[in-house]
Amino acid sequence: MSSYLEIVKRSYPRFSGVHTFFRLQQEKPEHIKSNALLCGIPFDGGTTYRSGARMAPSRVREISALGRGYHPQWNQDVFESLQPADVGDIPINPISIEKTYELIEKHIFNLAKGKKKILSVGGDHSITLPILRALSKIYGPLNLIHFDAHFDTYPPAYGVEYHHGTFVRHAVLEKCVNQVFQFGIRGPFVVKEDIDFGKQHQIQVFTVDDIKSKGIKILSELPELIKGPSYLSFDVDCLDPAYAPGTGTPVIGGLSSYESQQILRHLKIENLIGGDVVEVNPSYDHGDITSLAAVSTLFEILNLMV
Amino acid sequence: MSSYLEIVKRSYPRFSGVHTFFRLQQEKPEHIKSNALLCGIPFDGGTTYRSGARMAPSRVREISALGRGYHPQWNQDVFESLQPADVGDIPINPISIEKTYELIEKHIFNLAKGKKKILSVGGDHSITLPILRALSKIYGPLNLIHFDAHFDTYPPAYGVEYHHGTFVRHAVLEKCVNQVFQFGIRGPFVVKEDIDFGKQHQIQVFTVDDIKSKGIKILSELPELIKGPSYLSFDVDCLDPAYAPGTGTPVIGGLSSYESQQILRHLKIENLIGGDVVEVNPSYDHGDITSLAAVSTLFEILNLMV
Amino acid sequence: MSSYLEIVKRSYPRFSGVHTFFRLQQEKPEHIKSNALLCGIPFDGGTTYRSGARMAPSRVREISALGRGYHPQWNQDVFESLQPADVGDIPINPISIEKTYELIEKHIFNLAKGKKKILSVGGDHSITLPILRALSKIYGPLNLIHFDAHFDTYPPAYGVEYHHGTFVRHAVLEKCVNQVFQFGIRGPFVVKEDIDFGKQHQIQVFTVDDIKSKGIKILSELPELIKGPSYLSFDVDCLDPAYAPGTGTPVIGGLSSYESQQILRHLKIENLIGGDVVEVNPSYDHGDITSLAAVSTLFEILNLMV
Amino acid sequence: MSSYLEIVKRSYPRFSGVHTFFRLQQEKPEHIKSNALLCGIPFDGGTTYRSGARMAPSRVREISALGRGYHPQWNQDVFESLQPADVGDIPINPISIEKTYELIEKHIFNLAKGKKKILSVGGDHSITLPILRALSKIYGPLNLIHFDAHFDTYPPAYGVEYHHGTFVRHAVLEKCVNQVFQFGIRGPFVVKEDIDFGKQHQIQVFTVDDIKSKGIKILSELPELIKGPSYLSFDVDCLDPAYAPGTGTPVIGGLSSYESQQILRHLKIENLIGGDVVEVNPSYDHGDITSLAAVSTLFEILNLMV
Amino acid sequence: MSSYLEIVKRSYPRFSGVHTFFRLQQEKPEHIKSNALLCGIPFDGGTTYRSGARMAPSRVREISALGRGYHPQWNQDVFESLQPADVGDIPINPISIEKTYELIEKHIFNLAKGKKKILSVGGDHSITLPILRALSKIYGPLNLIHFDAHFDTYPPAYGVEYHHGTFVRHAVLEKCVNQVFQFGIRGPFVVKEDIDFGKQHQIQVFTVDDIKSKGIKILSELPELIKGPSYLSFDVDCLDPAYAPGTGTPVIGGLSSYESQQILRHLKIENLIGGDVVEVNPSYDHGDITSLAAVSTLFEILNLMV
Amino acid sequence: MSSYLEIVKRSYPRFSGVHTFFRLQQEKPEHIKSNALLCGIPFDGGTTYRSGARMAPSRVREISALGRGYHPQWNQDVFESLQPADVGDIPINPISIEKTYELIEKHIFNLAKGKKKILSVGGDHSITLPILRALSKIYGPLNLIHFDAHFDTYPPAYGVEYHHGTFVRHAVLEKCVNQVFQFGIRGPFVVKEDIDFGKQHQIQVFTVDDIKSKGIKILSELPELIKGPSYLSFDVDCLDPAYAPGTGTPVIGGLSSYESQQILRHLKIENLIGGDVVEVNPSYDHGDITSLAAVSTLFEILNLMV
Repeated sequence: MSSYLEIVKRSYPRFSGVHTFFRLQQEKPEHIKSNALLCGIPFDGGTTYRSGARMAPSRVREISALGRGYHPQWNQDVFESLQPADVGDIPINPISIEKTYELIEKHIFNLAKGKKKILSVGGDHSITLPILRALSKIYGPLNLIHFDAHFDTYPPAYGVEYHHGTFVRHAVLEKCVNQVFQFGIRGPFVVKEDIDFGKQHQIQVFTVDDIKSKGIKILSELPELIKGPSYLSFDVDCLDPAYAPGTGTPVIGGLSSYESQQILRHLKIENLIGGDVVEVNPSYDHGDITSLAAVSTLFEILNLMV
Repeated sequence: MSSYLEIVKRSYPRFSGVHTFFRLQQEKPEHIKSNALLCGIPFDGGTTYRSGARMAPSRVREISALGRGYHPQWNQDVFESLQPADVGDIPINPISIEKTYELIEKHIFNLAKGKKKILSVGGDHSITLPILRALSKIYGPLNLIHFDAHFDTYPPAYGVEYHHGTFVRHAVLEKCVNQVFQFGIRGPFVVKEDIDFGKQHQIQVFTVDDIKSKGIKILSELPELIKGPSYLSFDVDCLDPAYAPGTGTPVIGGLSSYESQQILRHLKIENLIGGDVVEVNPSYDHGDITSLAAVSTLFEILNLMV
Repeated sequence: MSSYLEIVKRSYPRFSGVHTFFRLQQEKPEHIKSNALLCGIPFDGGTTYRSGARMAPSRVREISALGRGYHPQWNQDVFESLQPADVGDIPINPISIEKTYELIEKHIFNLAKGKKKILSVGGDHSITLPILRALSKIYGPLNLIHFDAHFDTYPPAYGVEYHHGTFVRHAVLEKCVNQVFQFGIRGPFVVKEDIDFGKQHQIQVFTVDDIKSKGIKILSELPELIKGPSYLSFDVDCLDPAYAPGTGTPVIGGLSSYESQQILRHLKIENLIGGDVVEVNPSYDHGDITSLAAVSTLFEILNLMV
Repeated sequence: MSSYLEIVKRSYPRFSGVHTFFRLQQEKPEHIKSNALLCGIPFDGGTTYRSGARMAPSRVREISALGRGYHPQWNQDVFESLQPADVGDIPINPISIEKTYELIEKHIFNLAKGKKKILSVGGDHSITLPILRALSKIYGPLNLIHFDAHFDTYPPAYGVEYHHGTFVRHAVLEKCVNQVFQFGIRGPFVVKEDIDFGKQHQIQVFTVDDIKSKGIKILSELPELIKGPSYLSFDVDCLDPAYAPGTGTPVIGGLSSYESQQILRHLKIENLIGGDVVEVNPSYDHGDITSLAAVSTLFEILNLMV
Repeated sequence: MSSYLEIVKRSYPRFSGVHTFFRLQQEKPEHIKSNALLCGIPFDGGTTYRSGARMAPSRVREISALGRGYHPQWNQDVFESLQPADVGDIPINPISIEKTYELIEKHIFNLAKGKKKILSVGGDHSITLPILRALSKIYGPLNLIHFDAHFDTYPPAYGVEYHHGTFVRHAVLEKCVNQVFQFGIRGPFVVKEDIDFGKQHQIQVFTVDDIKSKGIKILSELPELIKGPSYLSFDVDCLDPAYAPGTGTPVIGGLSSYESQQILRHLKIENLIGGDVVEVNPSYDHGDITSLAAVSTLFEILNLMV
Repeated sequence: MSSYLEIVKRSYPRFSGVHTFFRLQQEKPEHIKSNALLCGIPFDGGTTYRSGARMAPSRVREISALGRGYHPQWNQDVFESLQPADVGDIPINPISIEKTYELIEKHIFNLAKGKKKILSVGGDHSITLPILRALSKIYGPLNLIHFDAHFDTYPPAYGVEYHHGTFVRHAVLEKCVNQVFQFGIRGPFVVKEDIDFGKQHQIQVFTVDDIKSKGIKILSELPELIKGPSYLSFDVDCLDPAYAPGTGTPVIGGLSSYESQQILRHLKIENLIGGDVVEVNPSYDHGDITSLAAVSTLFEILNLMV
């Protein structure tokens, strides 16, 4: 174990201190040494129902003190092997989605351009598009593994091109992503046509019905190994509201946290270069269970990055 | 899509406006055109433990703005095909169950007598008896599909004939209902004799044990098609408190929201003429997840009415 | 009493029914008869700290059912004398403040152009600027009576011209308003220069210190009658967080609800043509006490409009 | 100090044990030795807005463990001087107000007939009428000291004679009470006529305006000593919602808890034979501050009983 | 039915009265007649993350009023057959774990020495060690059936020997327990070495993975009958946070309440002489669902004691 | 403005980033440059009623982002003039008050020995004693300005010398403090003798009655200037529960936040060398108003340190 972590773990209770993600060393963007970077992106200006996801990075940092390091399935301590760091929050503009998109794209590009792995905590799901733009400039088109209750391929709303339900459509059309895999999708839908975009673009959709009826065996329908640079985006509303009440647009009939863990623990991804956990809304959470689900998911993603 | 819905969906965010159920057109009881009517019945004077279900219609209306119309399994938009309307709340008397029973029976009779379908949001489960009285005057004895943790065939309590745990007993004895099917029942019970009424009256009981062990296949024990006029009453406490904390008399070890959806989506009912969702208690809810479960159940019932 | 209100008051409990402001008749924007119009403006995209004020019109409508009509000081029932109506929510764009400003200005102008009085429920405080723009096109420059913990004369933040702390600055510079009176202001401030704008533009500031030390007598420093068309904007954060916890940027050491009532009940305003209550954030409220303070303030403003 | 209390205070933390009011000895109704009896009356079937006051006796018992015994103003330890006991809850019928009224009247009469002092925790305010009926059978007409935001002289609602806003009217007309003093009343009112009953029956009303403007001096308008048997009924909604959010029909602009203490500490009552604290609704409370205000008020009333 | 229970069940609503566990007769430690004793142990001074479990006995007593007596699987009413009593709370010292350990060991020994069965409600999990010390003095080494997310075999923390994660290690090393069975364990772990203690001491571990993949069949890996004196300790964090949010150190990916019930209902234990339910933390609970899970678990344990 | 603060204030919204107190520069204990140091002391093992104050430093750090720097009364920006830093949390032992006392005394001594000013955030009030021990070793006996509802001169409880209500007694007897001034004290008390210690030791007590009746003029009873090294300890329960619900042992009838501000703004202290804000308990708070009151008090104390 790194001596820094050793000291922290022994001397201070988990509830103590200035909270970074998983009590990791904090690195200023201008002096980054680590190759795996966690950051917050506290923007909720793309939300169409309950706002408040801007508070998620703070709360997830606090709750992540409960995070433990040794993963029995992968037989590794990811904090030792990856030595990740918390680089703080990406600057965003709480009023303007356009300015925020520019800021995210620029800063993520700068952080990741040395092929450092990036793991972000939203914010609403609109933050993923500028991340994908930045990363695809570095890596070319990415595989996208996408957990969500919703397709996020929706058309503009109220005459606005970007909102928290459009990033997959834009990412596909802009060729930031290549093959898309979706987990946790469930109806009802606004209109029947919501299903069409995915079909047209060969998105491989694993609905809740698929996952509940077949279990983990469903992953045999995936390629044996997802090759090339890949990105994993986890919207906590893929979980049932019993497991993730603190989110902006909850949908009942979702995954349990165990089911999401099982999928994450059985994915075979050659090169996971980035990821995010989004749509945690602390003001609708209770007992911080949604933040805790986010923390555990961040931990699983870090393990997939090794 | 109907032009009304089109306008609503495009111009206003879901959190906006005067809230009717599912953002439907409101109709005054004296000028009703629709054939499928949603109403609130905000009475909680029959509650024996936590009161507060009177606030459910308000909260369910607000949260129902999250409702979406296209059901992929039934391949229909129920708001287009049924064109349902919100007729407001049935007048009730918050102090007197007797006066409330008269009011409910009279008003439901008047709303439904032209064979309009009626879907109500309680209130506690005591509201279902006067609804069944009104509807059986129109249709004769009904089939009753009943989701609940409890039998609701209990004897009077504290010397009072009517409370929220007696409607099935009265409805059977008064011959408002004919065949009864119960889903989600689970022990412990107050006394062993609680089980007897159901046995005596050929109530077909599907306990949580039955449902958890056999899954959706259990529905093969039902008639292939439930024929004749039927009514569906959904007490949210059939769900586990993890999925429906906001209710008056919660019982652990219940159904998940997905399991309840699965049953609702596989029922074969010839003529569902009415239904209700009861026992939502917003003051014990969090993140409005119980109200959201109620909204989704209302949507499934509407789909069964087509 | 008007027969409409009579029926409503007698037949339905306060918690019952589709909720309009104060259980008033709802009027569609295209068929407006009333001369005093209440509307919601559920926009929170100008918020710089806790978002969520978009949910305020819904919650305020629900709680306003507790509103009663007879004001003993003014000896009038404002619902009888003004016959106000609820015209629903102004369409807004939850993603874009620019588009929202256009929508608010256009719709408020259309509602108010026949010199109908307009009372709005925000949303964050950024909504007041386009209202003032619309109303000053109709009436010319207005007097502004402004309750707030903050000056709202702040400079752009993060390079964005408009946010929830800038409306007074813009309204003054654009000459939408003429004389400004502020109540409830208190420090600390971000920088000393925050005080300068008000001084330069002869804004009459009544700080919490002024009000606490002199009480209602302080109103003698106002003109005997505030003449000409006037507008009253009430940010609930003028109240202490004990009285209004559910708000975006609370500041301790504020007014009690009684103190705010006293000021509102002793203002002498010749022609109050519009008003708003803003910055209610239900997701940080408890027991709905902030919404209830908003309801009572709306009632006081209606009384000042007679 | 009594040896019982001594042991309790020293050995067990305040949060520990089976909770009786103020950790007092529990007495079964059939074996009562104490002359000052505390009881719960958990009935909320008279509530016209937010139900839930039935849970108050439980929560108030729990929080009353924080109660301390020595009152510096009266220079006494009321638990030593009065030796009060907790006699449990009066049996009530949660469904029927009529049956509940019979039960309360009968049981209170039996408890009090030996001129034992009775202090009750509601429940909603409808419980006070049968208490007054019982006590006036023993003592004849009583003085009533009444803290409330509302007159509670209202007419029947929805055609029902009894609800939580009518007890003063009935008590006056039935001559259970003689002189009535009201503290904390504030508008607005439903109709102007609400004021008339009090005027006709010489009720002495101290509004919030009176109390805020004159302070404790206002008590000089009372008789120097309130003579004869007296009863004190304290509705927690006399307090501002900031101090008592957990109540059924809150009204802003109310008393602070300090102001209510000041009045209670300066009343001169010759013979206070009973009292109650009502309308605590724990499901709308937070941090149990309303229950704590109730506990402190119970303590002040006990001190007035010595 | 015993006449005591009969009276209680008929005359008083469940929310009424001074709350003992399951509304049972209260017995003072000095006059104990029952052979099955429930007690509270409100100590949370061993907690390493969220404190507050000291409030659990109070809340569990309140919610246990919802408990019902007839268990359909065992075909018995445990309150009739066992006639258990509530003996109040064990005196603890909220400041000192050492003094508390002495107090618990002494009092549990005194209560149990006549081979009375003891069922305790924590408090955090540190309370179990002194209970096991006391009981093993009476019975010799016990079998331990242990439900938990954590091994509780951890080393001292911050240089302190005892905390809420060490009781199994001490109990094994002190030979208070013999064979240990653990249910609900799940990673991640702090360090890989956390797994070693269990392996060295032949602890039979059933992880969540085991239980989720094999279901109730997993119990065939247990001895056909667990012989000799046994103790069952149930940490509510074995449940997923969706089912038990109110706990000190929650871990996602846990058991559902139904899964825990299934295990409890299929255990074959010859002589269950004691048990506990620990780590309920009411200040992080909502809708009291964690307390309700605790109540139901207490009921299952009582049934296993018959 | 310092360039560090300038950047922070302009580029990042207040809800963004790794949270230090007031968004100040973080300094590691081994490299301290600043002369005014803020630290957390998250210990709640001395609490006798509601535990949970250990979470206060985290939450206060988060909410302190709302803090603004320019104080109009003192006409200074304390962050510029004092240039304070956040030195993280003092290591504590959550299980043992004795070990924690050693840790606090040692670390505070090391931080303060160069006569750096120290401002701590508790934790419960037991943390103040070891701070005073450390500081009096450096400075000799201190003046103590103490805000509290309680005297904190209580005897040992349950046979334990130290708990959160004893620090003043120990500090006086150990001669860590010299002259003590108490603000906000109010009854009832446990026993009459609680008052004696203060009288014996010439503690100058300003009760709530004193403050409410005389207002700020009461400060004329203080020395014109409090000379010599002084320490200010602020227990948030000096505030009324309406203003500070999130605390361990609330007492109604307390100060308003404005009244506490007024006292703090009018104190004349020659040399304030340290202070603390204690007994914030976030798990009983709502809308974070208690944390916000703590933040504002920290700010006032910083201003008194200049």
